Amino acid sequence: MATATVSKEILETHPAPAQLERDLLARCIDDCLACLQACTACADADLAEPDVAEMRRCMRLCLDCADSCDVTLRQLSRQTEYVAETLRAQVAACWELSAICARECERHAEHHEHCRICGEVCRRCEQSCSAVLDAIGEPA
Amino acid sequence: MATATVSKEILETHPAPAQLERDLLARCIDDCLACLQACTACADADLAEPDVAEMRRCMRLCLDCADSCDVTLRQLSRQTEYVAETLRAQVAACWELSAICARECERHAEHHEHCRICGEVCRRCEQSCSAVLDAIGEPA
Amino acid sequence: MATATVSKEILETHPAPAQLERDLLARCIDDCLACLQACTACADADLAEPDVAEMRRCMRLCLDCADSCDVTLRQLSRQTEYVAETLRAQVAACWELSAICARECERHAEHHEHCRICGEVCRRCEQSCSAVLDAIGEPA
Amino acid sequence: MATATVSKEILETHPAPAQLERDLLARCIDDCLACLQACTACADADLAEPDVAEMRRCMRLCLDCADSCDVTLRQLSRQTEYVAETLRAQVAACWELSAICARECERHAEHHEHCRICGEVCRRCEQSCSAVLDAIGEPA
Repeated sequence: MATATVSKEILETHPAPAQLERDLLARCIDDCLACLQACTACADADLAEPDVAEMRRCMRLCLDCADSCDVTLRQLSRQTEYVAETLRAQVAACWELSAICARECERHAEHHEHCRICGEVCRRCEQSCSAVLDAIGEPA
Repeated sequence: MATATVSKEILETHPAPAQLERDLLARCIDDCLACLQACTACADADLAEPDVAEMRRCMRLCLDCADSCDVTLRQLSRQTEYVAETLRAQVAACWELSAICARECERHAEHHEHCRICGEVCRRCEQSCSAVLDAIGEPA
Repeated sequence: MATATVSKEILETHPAPAQLERDLLARCIDDCLACLQACTACADADLAEPDVAEMRRCMRLCLDCADSCDVTLRQLSRQTEYVAETLRAQVAACWELSAICARECERHAEHHEHCRICGEVCRRCEQSCSAVLDAIGEPA
Repeated sequence: MATATVSKEILETHPAPAQLERDLLARCIDDCLACLQACTACADADLAEPDVAEMRRCMRLCLDCADSCDVTLRQLSRQTEYVAETLRAQVAACWELSAICARECERHAEHHEHCRICGEVCRRCEQSCSAVLDAIGEPA
């Protein structure tokens, strides 16, 4: 009944051979999609909280993290003319940001349920990005 | 095991009362997320096809539709200081585009599996946008 | 010395005949670019103000407006396989939002200089969108 | 008469002291704005060219580069709760991509005027990103 992404199915229909394992790509794409949404909603919920002045750092990081996940999932969804260097750099930026954003959300997890949820989603994104970085390998 | 979005859970943690039913919002957000990804991947797969010159209209519409879904899901994810007019206008734009993009993808569904999948995802997005428009109601 | 966009020059190099006057498109694209940036910076400056709790509506509208300008300028920059309906709907959404965002920023113009500047940029965007809507014409 | 961004003026109205020189930030933001637009238009013009099948790599890199410039200029426009690591990683990704995209556009500069223009815009973006990276400094 749940709406589901079709990331894996559609990646598999690409006419060219895959450069990276498609299960891995699809997992990271889906985690970035969830993180784009959760960070957008968390920043918005922060804004409505009575303690908004305490949530500045959380909001700023969530806004950045949403944007970073967005561009990362777009690059991961493109398989034509793969360039390892550019994908590595973008996934590394997303990994860095989702880790820092997770840490900040976790600090507020006890008093703001949206931060607890968003922190978990950021951690999954961080882990998926890390797995993609391992698969791309080191710069030549 | 599947990665899932947390759209509904996180919308429900917002401190303010909801202006629109959160099930409906979450469904439309998830359909926009899936459509952002599917359209990005479909445009990219089109680009790698031997008949790329026949796929120009599909690519152009998929690129536009991905961007439209992106901004729409971001607006739907924000519940602070709701303004009916601006949400209506953006969801209407996404509804229009996902319908036209679906029609184009369906034309190629028999020879390109990515177009068949993308057409279905666009149709779900069109329907969710339509349901949200009904819930927002007519301009005053 | 100033960095300038090349919107007009690059639109004129497109191999197909233009559907809309390129001066008009370039003007609207440039106003959307400026508005994407000004709204992003204004929301961020709001967040750092001592009266952040009074700036909630301004922040929410600026975040939405930045995203709307972003997708609008991307659609305006694409001339291949032009579809009047989809462009009209997106430009209409951007026109609506930039007008509402301008009004909110103007309310804060006396005490926040970033709101004064952002309000002016939103007004220019609103006017450019209006001119593009006139050029596209009514739905058939 | 030309439409101009207000990046520098609006950055200077931020209530907090700047972490990075605002001239430098504004220059990089403006170069990213121009590159977002030029790459979007170049990918679109490629799509309409008779030799579209030869332009696959250019299109893919231009689409990625537009997205990367977009998220980079958004992060650069935010000065609240500055985090050096996340900005460095994102600007590094944009620097990498704009350099690779410039090189590809330059290969087509003689037969496609949009590629010549886009290549120049990418080079300016690459240089601005490099200057920002120097200002941020090395990881601790």
